Amino acid sequence: MTGRNGGADLAPPAPFDPVVILVRPQLAENIGTTARAMANGGLFHLRLVAPRDGWPQPRAWYASSGADRILEEATVFETVDDAIADLHRVFATCPRPRHIIKPVMTARGAAAELRATSSRKLKSGILFGPERAGLDNEDMARADTLIRYPLNPRFMSLNLAQAVLVMAYEWYLTEDTVPEQYLMTNETHVATKGEVENFMTHLLRDLDECGFLHHEQKRPGMIRNLRHLFARGEITEQELRTLHGVVSELSRARKIRHTK
Amino acid sequence: MTGRNGGADLAPPAPFDPVVILVRPQLAENIGTTARAMANGGLFHLRLVAPRDGWPQPRAWYASSGADRILEEATVFETVDDAIADLHRVFATCPRPRHIIKPVMTARGAAAELRATSSRKLKSGILFGPERAGLDNEDMARADTLIRYPLNPRFMSLNLAQAVLVMAYEWYLTEDTVPEQYLMTNETHVATKGEVENFMTHLLRDLDECGFLHHEQKRPGMIRNLRHLFARGEITEQELRTLHGVVSELSRARKIRHTK
Repeated sequence: MTGRNGGADLAPPAPFDPVVILVRPQLAENIGTTARAMANGGLFHLRLVAPRDGWPQPRAWYASSGADRILEEATVFETVDDAIADLHRVFATCPRPRHIIKPVMTARGAAAELRATSSRKLKSGILFGPERAGLDNEDMARADTLIRYPLNPRFMSLNLAQAVLVMAYEWYLTEDTVPEQYLMTNETHVATKGEVENFMTHLLRDLDECGFLHHEQKRPGMIRNLRHLFARGEITEQELRTLHGVVSELSRARKIRHTK
Repeated sequence: MTGRNGGADLAPPAPFDPVVILVRPQLAENIGTTARAMANGGLFHLRLVAPRDGWPQPRAWYASSGADRILEEATVFETVDDAIADLHRVFATCPRPRHIIKPVMTARGAAAELRATSSRKLKSGILFGPERAGLDNEDMARADTLIRYPLNPRFMSLNLAQAVLVMAYEWYLTEDTVPEQYLMTNETHVATKGEVENFMTHLLRDLDECGFLHHEQKRPGMIRNLRHLFARGEITEQELRTLHGVVSELSRARKIRHTK
């Protein structure tokens, strides 16, 4: 089967990456959107326990936005015990556990644990319950650890794919090295301090020529303010060229007016 | 208008919490699922720029799972400039920016910045583009900073509500204090070391009686292994009572068999 996007070029699955296990999922669309969310976070192994409407279901492919390979390689089990038999570590997502004695982790904590388990070459899985009722007590007794997302306690309702996305996103972040902030410069580069100073010299010369800085007492403060402004964020070489042009053109216009 | 869940009890909105701005959204369902994702993360201010099918739209209420108040208080603007006029800081989500010179933050970095902006009593907003095409170059030129989610570069396709959920989740986490792991004990308590030792004494006495520990050379190692097992995770008082019962019952059965 092929979804409407014809199948995305997904990375080959790593054998010890976590398995997403949908327990008694009801809607095929949700299996498809789950595959999409898994692909977003680089997860590939999908298992289905007793899907209500059987498997495969074309509607899952339509909803997966091209995460076809995940659906094609999904495996089906009759019981949770069958689905986890080869795993070493099992997590269960559960928004409101009651009467349970069990370690509970945040999504972030669990993601770090899943990554550590994978790097020890142990197989792990995450159980997600059916849409309406969630996992039952028997399902949760199979898990080593519960995962509880930190979310608004007055509004915890997440759909299945949203719940999978949060775990997939946290899983992806455990190996991500993008800094929390950087300047995207594309084809150009961040200017050196010397290049910025060249521009300041150009600007101040032209401002002196037009008399903008004529007030001797205010002059040092005004220059300092301009320096502060241009030091506030990184400036690129390309932007400096534009600024040089802006100053030159404004000066030229003034000079032409002046000579007329 | 009231959604199918009759309206959830959402917390009152804080005036400087970030505004979610949907730019030219196409489907009313996506406006509803956006409101749901906002409620998950405790975000409340929603603005719509030129929604394709007009506003309000009942389908948004059906899709919001009870996040009605967010939809009822949503405001509509004709242009991005109108929608951001009262804001101090504007972020734009953008999976693949090109030919742009702009600071870029991860969702996590941006969430911290949004929280800091809010605590300085400055108003901030996050622009999300239309479903098909995303934000255009003119929209992005209005933003101070771009947000780029760390996600699988081979599969970045997120639907609108998924994109909003990631930001809402990160926003919620900036103030969340739940530890990454803890033992949920509900009605019972973690047992003290003395209580665990009482059980060990009970177990070893019964094991001695039945002869399990009769091998003098192996005895200390076997006892140590049992101690290691029971020290691996926290045990609750309730579980210790169960274990006492298990050991007593097994011993009694053996004694009865023995006397028969």
